[in-house]
Amino acid sequence: MTARDLEDCTVGQRFGSGRLRMDTEPITPFASAFDPQPFHRDAEAARDTLFRGLAASGWHTAAVTMRLLVESDLTPAGGLVGAGFDALPWPRPVRPGDELRVESDVLEVRPSKSRPEHGLITARTTTLNQHGEVVQVLIGNLVVWRRWTDARGMVCGL
Amino acid sequence: MTARDLEDCTVGQRFGSGRLRMDTEPITPFASAFDPQPFHRDAEAARDTLFRGLAASGWHTAAVTMRLLVESDLTPAGGLVGAGFDALPWPRPVRPGDELRVESDVLEVRPSKSRPEHGLITARTTTLNQHGEVVQVLIGNLVVWRRWTDARGMVCGL
Repeated sequence: MTARDLEDCTVGQRFGSGRLRMDTEPITPFASAFDPQPFHRDAEAARDTLFRGLAASGWHTAAVTMRLLVESDLTPAGGLVGAGFDALPWPRPVRPGDELRVESDVLEVRPSKSRPEHGLITARTTTLNQHGEVVQVLIGNLVVWRRWTDARGMVCGL
Repeated sequence: MTARDLEDCTVGQRFGSGRLRMDTEPITPFASAFDPQPFHRDAEAARDTLFRGLAASGWHTAAVTMRLLVESDLTPAGGLVGAGFDALPWPRPVRPGDELRVESDVLEVRPSKSRPEHGLITARTTTLNQHGEVVQVLIGNLVVWRRWTDARGMVCGL
């Protein structure tokens, strides 16, 4: 299933993704750059923290979720452009060796009131590990072009 | 101002940060890894998109915001641990050359109902560019230890 324009989107559609493996190697360099706390950087130091062992930064999980979404079948013509999110909970830590995938469910589809060349879809994107356990839930709005616009969101031919 | 425990936190506190500069070099490698879309990866290709030029991935802005927060004076004893967020809008693109900083305002402080050794603070973290324009707003809950707990969130001495 591939969605490119607002007219391809319907409530109830689900888009899946491939898998990405999280190991110590991507987890700790990401943390060093963006979230340099002991429980994300060092397995030994992580033992005596709330996480009781190395866990990926939630922002790493969020970034990997985006990568999986970009490579999924949810491929709007203008790109995947977020326009605000309602929730980003991380109910469970991501551990080295976890394999993540996403499921994105279309909850709402509507034309934009202010910009007739755009539409908006509300999607719930759930990130799961290899055991099917939820590690992130993100409910957000995506900008989607109408069928008659080009890649800049302009009416074709104008 | 430094906050380490729930007892140090009060509604109305504001925590500031240093600055981090976003240039083409960190923007495009982050995008290649996590958000490989033309408007985040290539200045030339970005011209004919909604962004009308290279813009950082919103997830890059979110990750840099975390880095600035970790290095701010908001330094809970157990670390900066997010427990869910209500909003993550990106009202304005981040461009190469932008210098980002954050302001974090404490909106609510409360003990945890289910875990007496923990507290929760609700904070609004605003990320601004060098012109004082808002590029991200994040309202989220952070887990904060009570004064009498150790780094694992356990009661000291037990």
